[in-house]
Amino acid sequence: MTHNESPVHPLDQALALEPLDKGHWQGTTSQAYANMVGPFGGTTGATLLQGVLSHEELLGEPVSLTVNFAAPVGDGNFEVIARPVRTNRNSQHWWVELVQDGEVVTFATVVTARRRETWASTEADFPDVPPASDLPVASKEGRPAWTRNYDMRFVDGALLGEPDRDYPSRSRVWMQDQPSRPLDFLSLSALCDAFFPRIYIRRPKLVPIGTVSLTTYFHADGEQLASVGSDPVLGVARASRFGKGFFDQSAEVWSRGGELLATTHQVVYFKE
Amino acid sequence: MTHNESPVHPLDQALALEPLDKGHWQGTTSQAYANMVGPFGGTTGATLLQGVLSHEELLGEPVSLTVNFAAPVGDGNFEVIARPVRTNRNSQHWWVELVQDGEVVTFATVVTARRRETWASTEADFPDVPPASDLPVASKEGRPAWTRNYDMRFVDGALLGEPDRDYPSRSRVWMQDQPSRPLDFLSLSALCDAFFPRIYIRRPKLVPIGTVSLTTYFHADGEQLASVGSDPVLGVARASRFGKGFFDQSAEVWSRGGELLATTHQVVYFKE
Repeated sequence: MTHNESPVHPLDQALALEPLDKGHWQGTTSQAYANMVGPFGGTTGATLLQGVLSHEELLGEPVSLTVNFAAPVGDGNFEVIARPVRTNRNSQHWWVELVQDGEVVTFATVVTARRRETWASTEADFPDVPPASDLPVASKEGRPAWTRNYDMRFVDGALLGEPDRDYPSRSRVWMQDQPSRPLDFLSLSALCDAFFPRIYIRRPKLVPIGTVSLTTYFHADGEQLASVGSDPVLGVARASRFGKGFFDQSAEVWSRGGELLATTHQVVYFKE
Repeated sequence: MTHNESPVHPLDQALALEPLDKGHWQGTTSQAYANMVGPFGGTTGATLLQGVLSHEELLGEPVSLTVNFAAPVGDGNFEVIARPVRTNRNSQHWWVELVQDGEVVTFATVVTARRRETWASTEADFPDVPPASDLPVASKEGRPAWTRNYDMRFVDGALLGEPDRDYPSRSRVWMQDQPSRPLDFLSLSALCDAFFPRIYIRRPKLVPIGTVSLTTYFHADGEQLASVGSDPVLGVARASRFGKGFFDQSAEVWSRGGELLATTHQVVYFKE
């Protein structure tokens, strides 16, 4: 590295892949994004997306990403294998897997497409909330390592706080990479998993949890994401149902200017 | 068939799979569930789920289903191949594909799990709507064949009607199989794709559309679904964003008694 180069962002370090063969890479988990056990799921999902975005046969940009967390990811090396299952004229369907010790521990399906201008309309409501600059940065005390890579400022629904009477599982939170980093599909996909599990908002008690499947729809294209730069984005997350060992959660991610960048959904295992 | 046996329901005919080998079946598309082009996506997704539910290594019940519509499904025969990617003590992650002429045209990932009693809470609101019996059955005139297998009664947001001022892409609709059939995971997964594309509600104009990825989370277990029997279920569907050739839609499916049975999300291609 020369004096003119900026240091590699921790997220880009975490998502770095070393080519082994066509559609086949090696990576290593990052201590900077460690969770309670193993790595933060947002970086694991972004690593799988990285495999697709790095593939020489890639067509277009991500539209949809579904990550299945099949087994715990261990700290250390892993392989990523990406394969286009189907390539159409303007869209592509992908399978991508993260392998450790010969076993698939996480896998994803991805849809990419060439996007083009069409009629557009946003039906979800951009909430009326104070700007990030008016809110305190959430403390990382006692939180897992990965949270130190995000600046989070809660409008409401902070972790283990008093649940809101009307929206007991909802959080509204300004979020950005820390240190700051221009937004792209990789960082946005990780941010979509940075919402704390809704059960910790709804019921302020720590129980074992784990996301089993996470789906993100990208409404913005790469150019729109680039125009957000390193501004904070607003996340609005809520659950609809807890029961029989699982709950769901859904979230919107908005630009400061009120553009809906992504919507994201997940189903999460919980104990008790 | 003897006189005592009831005829096979059209949905069960459409989803019938003939075993070829372990985790490998043959099926045939059903004219009863024909769409504008090829079969109704709800039955295609249910066929993939059928592959998982018929597999001799199945553990537990469906929690999550993501179907990717990679290419058009042609009328006629197809093969279904299901494979457990990972089997844990209480959960299992599946890959399942639908193959025609040696090409994967649709594929799905499924999470199944042994569910158990835990703390439970429903945060989504069961809407205050008139019962199905107070509403007229929606006409099937000019609609594709598959709609004739559903009794649909719209509270609001009917196809190509006047959009609601406050919720222009929302529909609330009572739905049930026609002829009636006890609810199970297969029929519920198909119902989750029976919502008309939100763009036809929001903007009453027919343009080419196609779902690219559909995710359903099952909140109910098999016993709860069985207790719904052949009652109508209430669907509430809406979109959050249309733009750059794609829109998303999300829906809840409720029992008449106010139990949230499933939540479902999809991203849909549209032209213009």
